[in-house]
Amino acid sequence: MTERIAPRSGTAFVLDQGDELVVIDPDGGQVSDLLAYARDDVREAISNGRTFDYEETISLTTGNVLWSNRSRRMLEIVEDTAGRHDFLLTPCSVDTFRHFYPDKPEHRGCFGNLAEALAPYGIDEEAIPTAFNVFMNVPVEPESGRIAVLPPTTERGDRIRLRALMPLVIGLTACSAYASNGGTFKPIDYRIEKPSGLAR
Amino acid sequence: MTERIAPRSGTAFVLDQGDELVVIDPDGGQVSDLLAYARDDVREAISNGRTFDYEETISLTTGNVLWSNRSRRMLEIVEDTAGRHDFLLTPCSVDTFRHFYPDKPEHRGCFGNLAEALAPYGIDEEAIPTAFNVFMNVPVEPESGRIAVLPPTTERGDRIRLRALMPLVIGLTACSAYASNGGTFKPIDYRIEKPSGLAR
Repeated sequence: MTERIAPRSGTAFVLDQGDELVVIDPDGGQVSDLLAYARDDVREAISNGRTFDYEETISLTTGNVLWSNRSRRMLEIVEDTAGRHDFLLTPCSVDTFRHFYPDKPEHRGCFGNLAEALAPYGIDEEAIPTAFNVFMNVPVEPESGRIAVLPPTTERGDRIRLRALMPLVIGLTACSAYASNGGTFKPIDYRIEKPSGLAR
Repeated sequence: MTERIAPRSGTAFVLDQGDELVVIDPDGGQVSDLLAYARDDVREAISNGRTFDYEETISLTTGNVLWSNRSRRMLEIVEDTAGRHDFLLTPCSVDTFRHFYPDKPEHRGCFGNLAEALAPYGIDEEAIPTAFNVFMNVPVEPESGRIAVLPPTTERGDRIRLRALMPLVIGLTACSAYASNGGTFKPIDYRIEKPSGLAR
């Protein structure tokens, strides 16, 4: 059963250990911010710093693991047709809209959408770290270190598959910012596959 | 008054708005992990994701600002004789020692040192994000995104000067890991200069 996240919105759900989460860009060119928390203690959260350290790269793809702030393995990327994601930037928020788009209407962004979706799990705004930004295209300039937020290179149906290595709470969005999806706001699809191969 | 942080240890202190914190590498080749929290609510912490986003670079030096998770400006780099720092990696911890140095004695690392130093301010382990790793030399390979932890390029007396843009609690270490300082464990010096120019 594939679920759809409407444009500029977000959701949250749980994964059991062994479940596979497939995040799909149905139209191409969209970004999905992903957060993960340990279900047995949501103070344990996905950490870009631990992940970069243990994986020894900032470019995460098939075979890489996303680690928690407590140095535990949370998710393994087991399939990736996109090959380009970002783990440098925090979710867009009302503050980033004011900063980057002062002439455009304010929006609570992925940050606000994640905060609302995660609140029922006891996760508050302060516990939202840098997200794993699926499909986001943020090249780093070699010498200067400068970064740019470019439209994703994804095509219709590109997907990433992540296996849960522990019981997790997941937050997931269809991104709300202008730059990250080239000014188009599109949905994101996802499904959860149980180890038996049956989708739930 | 210049203070010395002994090798493989850490400390914490407060800054008033306008204070300038000077972090000095007295012997060259050492790293200092820096954390910052808003004094009026320590749930507000330094954020690499917000900083990369607003500064549009991962290479932070003179003129750049370090931002909080609430999108407020915490510290401005006003002088930097080193020019190379890292904001990608979390503080070394007992887990990173087990991971990278399984044959070497365990150590609580910068993470443990920071946790102990910050505890009196009501800041616990879970509130330790990716640190701003002063003088740390972590080049990113252009195409692959691979990172390496190399010895710092600092020479004796290199320093960075950061101006507090709000009242802050600071955590600061002399790094404990092998890779980040080329296997040498050295002290770090720092001093706080009040806007009047008088050190306190």
